[in-house]
Amino acid sequence: MKYALVGYTGRMGAEITSLFGASGHELVMTVDENGGASRGVPQIVLDFSRPSALESTLRICREHTAALVLGTTGLSSEDMSAVREMSRLVPVVYSANYGVGINILMMMLSDYSEILSDWEMEMEEMHHNKKIDAPSGTALALMDALGRKCPAHSVRLGNLPGDHTVYLANSDELLTFTHRTINRSALSRGALLAAEFAISAGKGYYNFQDVLRKRK
Amino acid sequence: MKYALVGYTGRMGAEITSLFGASGHELVMTVDENGGASRGVPQIVLDFSRPSALESTLRICREHTAALVLGTTGLSSEDMSAVREMSRLVPVVYSANYGVGINILMMMLSDYSEILSDWEMEMEEMHHNKKIDAPSGTALALMDALGRKCPAHSVRLGNLPGDHTVYLANSDELLTFTHRTINRSALSRGALLAAEFAISAGKGYYNFQDVLRKRK
Amino acid sequence: MKYALVGYTGRMGAEITSLFGASGHELVMTVDENGGASRGVPQIVLDFSRPSALESTLRICREHTAALVLGTTGLSSEDMSAVREMSRLVPVVYSANYGVGINILMMMLSDYSEILSDWEMEMEEMHHNKKIDAPSGTALALMDALGRKCPAHSVRLGNLPGDHTVYLANSDELLTFTHRTINRSALSRGALLAAEFAISAGKGYYNFQDVLRKRK
Amino acid sequence: MKYALVGYTGRMGAEITSLFGASGHELVMTVDENGGASRGVPQIVLDFSRPSALESTLRICREHTAALVLGTTGLSSEDMSAVREMSRLVPVVYSANYGVGINILMMMLSDYSEILSDWEMEMEEMHHNKKIDAPSGTALALMDALGRKCPAHSVRLGNLPGDHTVYLANSDELLTFTHRTINRSALSRGALLAAEFAISAGKGYYNFQDVLRKRK
Repeated sequence: MKYALVGYTGRMGAEITSLFGASGHELVMTVDENGGASRGVPQIVLDFSRPSALESTLRICREHTAALVLGTTGLSSEDMSAVREMSRLVPVVYSANYGVGINILMMMLSDYSEILSDWEMEMEEMHHNKKIDAPSGTALALMDALGRKCPAHSVRLGNLPGDHTVYLANSDELLTFTHRTINRSALSRGALLAAEFAISAGKGYYNFQDVLRKRK
Repeated sequence: MKYALVGYTGRMGAEITSLFGASGHELVMTVDENGGASRGVPQIVLDFSRPSALESTLRICREHTAALVLGTTGLSSEDMSAVREMSRLVPVVYSANYGVGINILMMMLSDYSEILSDWEMEMEEMHHNKKIDAPSGTALALMDALGRKCPAHSVRLGNLPGDHTVYLANSDELLTFTHRTINRSALSRGALLAAEFAISAGKGYYNFQDVLRKRK
Repeated sequence: MKYALVGYTGRMGAEITSLFGASGHELVMTVDENGGASRGVPQIVLDFSRPSALESTLRICREHTAALVLGTTGLSSEDMSAVREMSRLVPVVYSANYGVGINILMMMLSDYSEILSDWEMEMEEMHHNKKIDAPSGTALALMDALGRKCPAHSVRLGNLPGDHTVYLANSDELLTFTHRTINRSALSRGALLAAEFAISAGKGYYNFQDVLRKRK
Repeated sequence: MKYALVGYTGRMGAEITSLFGASGHELVMTVDENGGASRGVPQIVLDFSRPSALESTLRICREHTAALVLGTTGLSSEDMSAVREMSRLVPVVYSANYGVGINILMMMLSDYSEILSDWEMEMEEMHHNKKIDAPSGTALALMDALGRKCPAHSVRLGNLPGDHTVYLANSDELLTFTHRTINRSALSRGALLAAEFAISAGKGYYNFQDVLRKRK
């Protein structure tokens, strides 16, 4: 596919460029804080940058009837309305988290939240010692998936890319669900799945779990 | 509830007697290899013994229109036909495994077996050093739930009641699902859930996952 | 060996009685809050009860020149002086924790505390939901062994007998040391090791790590 | 320090160059299959290449009275004699494994092998699916450290850099020692420690555990 990349010079941009290139996809347009460059017509636009970039991202989608995979966090409700509006014209995938495994875990826990509702629950998340926020956003998202709050223990050590563990216990059994990030390229792989989904989906608004369930 | 217990003198029998007693249920009939004793009319019959006991178990159900919770393994297809036939008269719950947590894990993995189908998979199970069969029946049941075979590593150490771990990995992430048995009374607790379910269910044939999903 | 047991009716007393009996040792004297009973001369006295019992415990040791295995916590410095004094007459083993595995872990970490001093460290301990103190005394003892404090995360779930995990990381590696209690009889097994050690040791004061290192 | 690097173009060479550069050390000589280049006099030579390179490595050490850090595997007994001979002139560190954490774990287990000798033991090691040998050389080295063989379970999944776990159990307790490689640069960091040690050590033959114990 021919894709445009908004946020080309960021870390996520670099990983997307590398993975999409290795998968045979062609980067035909780049957009960044300092402007943009184009050498073709994109079928899809990927934006993992900042809210301030959204307006130009949507303009590109509209101009080329290009699908959109959006991973920007911190969008306002007006922003989200504009994104929803765009999904009446093209396929739009939006998620705050493109991690494949962690989303599968969230889906499983959400589906079983009622059956697990009388199990006691705590979480542990381990990240590198530069991470400031605690608990991690992903730990909070796991609580959302389970529909309840619980103690979350934040371990900060060395250079760990990120582990999340959910403990659930009744009086005789302990269930432990752990997600370990091995490579930080996990997110760009999710973006690739989303792009491959969107390019052949009908227009409409999808989240990343729709992508994983292949609900086009 | 007033219950009959087939296999009263076995280990599972002792745990059921203890847990059901603590939950306020009344043991009104016991059956064992050496005969039986009765001091009331059972509303439900629990049988976690051997195939040879099935005939008398079904007779008691029929005589008292009592529900049945059956955990006997090694039943023949004729046996199973007789059990199915009984479910036209009374509620019957049958399962080879009444562990609550392990069944929840199997249900989750079964539901997500397709989404997880391109993840590489291995299992590890840890049990006490007296356990002869390897891999454990539960490890095989987990493979069934996932719809595919995989290497299963059997660790035999000390006095461990039983851990089962499913590893699933793609190139960037590792998902680990672990079930740990803390007390061997886990199974009797499942039997209690099944009995409480059956006593108020309509006649019919149920498995333990129906109990957990409360599908009466 | 012929042993006296102070704190006969407590939980630890019951486990000691059971394990020592199975190992062929003979209980010849019991002491409890309500008094005592004697049917022989003890070679060794075990006391896992309360500070208030210490005086009579030491009297029995002196009267019969019996060795002492003492596990009482909360002793005053006067109490400890009296215990030390007793060790001039008979072998005395004193420890606040008779867990074999956890003591081995503490010894290992203590020996390597300097080599590990530039590794970042955190701990996690998991116990049943009735446990009130946090972090556990054992977590604090692990910190002592390592000669430094660190964050300790206390997970309280179900009926877990007790796990302790020490995480140590540098920028490229993670070391994880975990001790899991499988049966609460772990402590009585340590008491048995200590008694078998003391019965053949020379008079003197020993801790449980001397027992494990067999330093008589 | 000014260092020579034999095996400059290999993967380990690249990681050493990167880490040593970041630590302020100066690469003054490179040697490779295709020859060498020099722009200064080395104080120390690092060789993590092949047995065939050893002769020229030793020549450089002799010529410049340079210390040696050697990580080549597959050396013959004649090779090792030549290395030992060299250690009469300069400090020589030799090890088949420069992983810091895994060596600390081996040292700990070796020191406690006797105390742990009546614990049952098994191992699990997890690596990426390209790894052919099983069990890993490190698992075998852990067995050596403990002085006995045990079942070793080899899990091969995705892109895992490498986990090693030693399970030790008695009837009441489970000890679990796990080493996880987070970044494959772990080995070059061990090479840096060894070089910093050797540069200030007296002439002699050292292994990597001497480096970790700072026994100069």
